[in-house]
Amino acid sequence: MARASSATLRGDNMRVVDAILAKRDGRELAAEEISELIRAYTAGEIPDYQLAAFLMAVYFRGMTAAETAALTLAMAGSGATVDLSAIPGVKVDKHSTGGVADTTTLVLAPLVAAAGVPVAKMSGRGLGFTGGTIDKLEAIPGFRTALSGDEFRANLAAIGVAITGQTPDIAPADGKLYALRDVTGTIESIPLIASSVMSKKIAAGADKILLDVKTGSGAFMKTAEDAVKLAATMVDIGTLVGRETMAVVSAMDEPLGLAVGNSLEVLEAIDILAGTGGAPELREVCLTLGAHMLVLAGRAADFAAGYDRLADLLSSGAALAKFAALVAAQGGDPAVVADRARLPLAAHRRDVPCPADGFVQAADAARIGYAAMLLGAGREYKGQAIDLGAGLVMRCRIGDRLAAGQPLATLYTSDPAKIPAAAAAVASALAIGPAPAARPRLILGTVTAAGAHIAK
Amino acid sequence: MARASSATLRGDNMRVVDAILAKRDGRELAAEEISELIRAYTAGEIPDYQLAAFLMAVYFRGMTAAETAALTLAMAGSGATVDLSAIPGVKVDKHSTGGVADTTTLVLAPLVAAAGVPVAKMSGRGLGFTGGTIDKLEAIPGFRTALSGDEFRANLAAIGVAITGQTPDIAPADGKLYALRDVTGTIESIPLIASSVMSKKIAAGADKILLDVKTGSGAFMKTAEDAVKLAATMVDIGTLVGRETMAVVSAMDEPLGLAVGNSLEVLEAIDILAGTGGAPELREVCLTLGAHMLVLAGRAADFAAGYDRLADLLSSGAALAKFAALVAAQGGDPAVVADRARLPLAAHRRDVPCPADGFVQAADAARIGYAAMLLGAGREYKGQAIDLGAGLVMRCRIGDRLAAGQPLATLYTSDPAKIPAAAAAVASALAIGPAPAARPRLILGTVTAAGAHIAK
Repeated sequence: MARASSATLRGDNMRVVDAILAKRDGRELAAEEISELIRAYTAGEIPDYQLAAFLMAVYFRGMTAAETAALTLAMAGSGATVDLSAIPGVKVDKHSTGGVADTTTLVLAPLVAAAGVPVAKMSGRGLGFTGGTIDKLEAIPGFRTALSGDEFRANLAAIGVAITGQTPDIAPADGKLYALRDVTGTIESIPLIASSVMSKKIAAGADKILLDVKTGSGAFMKTAEDAVKLAATMVDIGTLVGRETMAVVSAMDEPLGLAVGNSLEVLEAIDILAGTGGAPELREVCLTLGAHMLVLAGRAADFAAGYDRLADLLSSGAALAKFAALVAAQGGDPAVVADRARLPLAAHRRDVPCPADGFVQAADAARIGYAAMLLGAGREYKGQAIDLGAGLVMRCRIGDRLAAGQPLATLYTSDPAKIPAAAAAVASALAIGPAPAARPRLILGTVTAAGAHIAK
Repeated sequence: MARASSATLRGDNMRVVDAILAKRDGRELAAEEISELIRAYTAGEIPDYQLAAFLMAVYFRGMTAAETAALTLAMAGSGATVDLSAIPGVKVDKHSTGGVADTTTLVLAPLVAAAGVPVAKMSGRGLGFTGGTIDKLEAIPGFRTALSGDEFRANLAAIGVAITGQTPDIAPADGKLYALRDVTGTIESIPLIASSVMSKKIAAGADKILLDVKTGSGAFMKTAEDAVKLAATMVDIGTLVGRETMAVVSAMDEPLGLAVGNSLEVLEAIDILAGTGGAPELREVCLTLGAHMLVLAGRAADFAAGYDRLADLLSSGAALAKFAALVAAQGGDPAVVADRARLPLAAHRRDVPCPADGFVQAADAARIGYAAMLLGAGREYKGQAIDLGAGLVMRCRIGDRLAAGQPLATLYTSDPAKIPAAAAAVASALAIGPAPAARPRLILGTVTAAGAHIAK
């Protein structure tokens, strides 16, 4: 019966099954075995079902640092790589592991560029709760997110910042693997998540990489422990492949900004850049991440100097001016900076009332993101059109005291039929109780090649 | 990023990923979820890659008794089921988990039938070391192993025994799943092995099932502990689905019979049935399994009575006569019983000499089986033609004292070029040392619904 199986496997299949068995049984694979696996899978020489079994074995067994680095390099090298060597200065790329109302890129890119650090950014579209950075930028009338390589480099040279959609030729192996993981229950593996992120950053040409790893109810990593583990895995990859990498671990216990939705998040980013509003938490995370980027790029002596410099650029209006320049350079209407009515906003608006007197004890950020998706701000499936003007704006934060009937959030949608379900989702996402509640800590710490520094 | 995956899964895929995640995370699946998974997979509605991920999760997480029973019933019900209710008496099917020189079916079927217990047997072809029962029977000139349902039942009614090849409509889900497991590193899972075996027995119409679970160097289960676990899993399935099942755990530390190869094994079976030779170990296992079958069928008061009755049927010639009747009923030449030259035997023969004086300390039965395959007796891949006259006959047993140059085994092949590699395999399979060595225990114990009784 079963005993004879190995005798039936020959040729290429033999080696794939050997790799599956090695991983399944907890043996370390050689770097060449991993690169060959990824090369052959990307070339269509290995069937999905063998990779699926391999990925599930990785889920259970994990990968060593060397295996994870080999996987990352194999995926990074599976397609085109961007050469930014002609751009002067240290190119620092930033990646967030994602969260609800995470509008940092819209603020950080012009802010850091205003400080003289070139920002060459490839971003993705969103799937799920809200749009991605590319979707958000498309809320600005005329903004083009598909730049040619020449345009991208020309804009970088001219204004020091450019943001374009990730082209399918960047790390195509990652794209293929991710699609398979998505339907085989193998998303939640730290080495697979880490190599997916890092392969794209490496292929996109970054010299150094700053990661924002989120933890909490709205993040993929629900515990700080897992977030630190993911951060350390990515830092290890960067170290092993010669791209200095550091991570900030930050909380996503409630939406980071107040706005969830594409136009709404652009408006909040403009508020932060202009100093006229926006969530203080969003501003704080942007300044923190930006300060680390300046240090990594050698443009600030230390974190405090970087932080102060960026705060100055916000108050002086230089960061907002850089944002307007970015919008103009990519075909958008820079007047949105002053005239917000130029951004599309959904016609139907409704406040969700607080059901009782009390303090906001906790928020389920994922559920709030889900509510925004129900209103039309996000995609349920790939390729779905989204309503750029839909979403919601939070009217409370964890720790706030509210009276019954005060608004928890304001919903925006083009289709009023969507309001009841979204309102119910928002109401159920917020726990209101009689006891005062503390505001959650925002920045938990950092992870570098030297180790993790996480506040207890 | 990853956080949004579940929102992208809809419809049928949603449920499959949910099942994968449940198994991955150690939650028990409901019987209906498992039957639906198997139904949809067999119908081609679920892609291989999702099943592959599910199977690897099962490898790591195992299955509960209820899950395993549900899987077994789903596979048993995936195709035709044989109705043996018209045949009087309790139909007891026997299954061996496979081993080297396991010629028991050829002896047991006529032996038990001679005792009045109907033997309605579906057998498979071999893959790997040697042929399966069907291959061995085809070594008998004229023997037909593809009986129609009518022939099968008519022969059973007339002589109480019939052996036919397993048709593809028996448990097709098992066939499809097994092929996938074979190339995804998911063979070695006790619940998957157990459900594969039991699904075919249940579909083949057995009232009761006797299992011979092998352990040792030539068996799939290398340790007695694993063999007992597999046996208990299969007994549990039988109990849960209402088919009384018991298991004998027996050793496969060296080839069970002396002959490894198709014609050669038929010759050894005739020797046992005629009382003219054959390995005492093979005879002992046949009498043990047969005695339990008689008890299960209600044709013997207890094991000892069954054993004695079968020993009488061997010495009286009644079992050999039943074998001749079986051969004749299926179109074979019954004269082979008396005239062994009617069986094909390969022309080239060579003794493998013992390299030194000493005692046989240990044997690697799998490697001896591999040597027989090299000589042409087995298949390296599905559908490969085998040389029915090829194989080898062991000339020593563990514990035997040999002088240098005495034969370890005699090789048979049609292609003398195959001899050196096979001889080297046999020589390396046997450990010869100066110290006397004990003969290994043959029958380790039994497992029934009441528990395991394994000799320490």
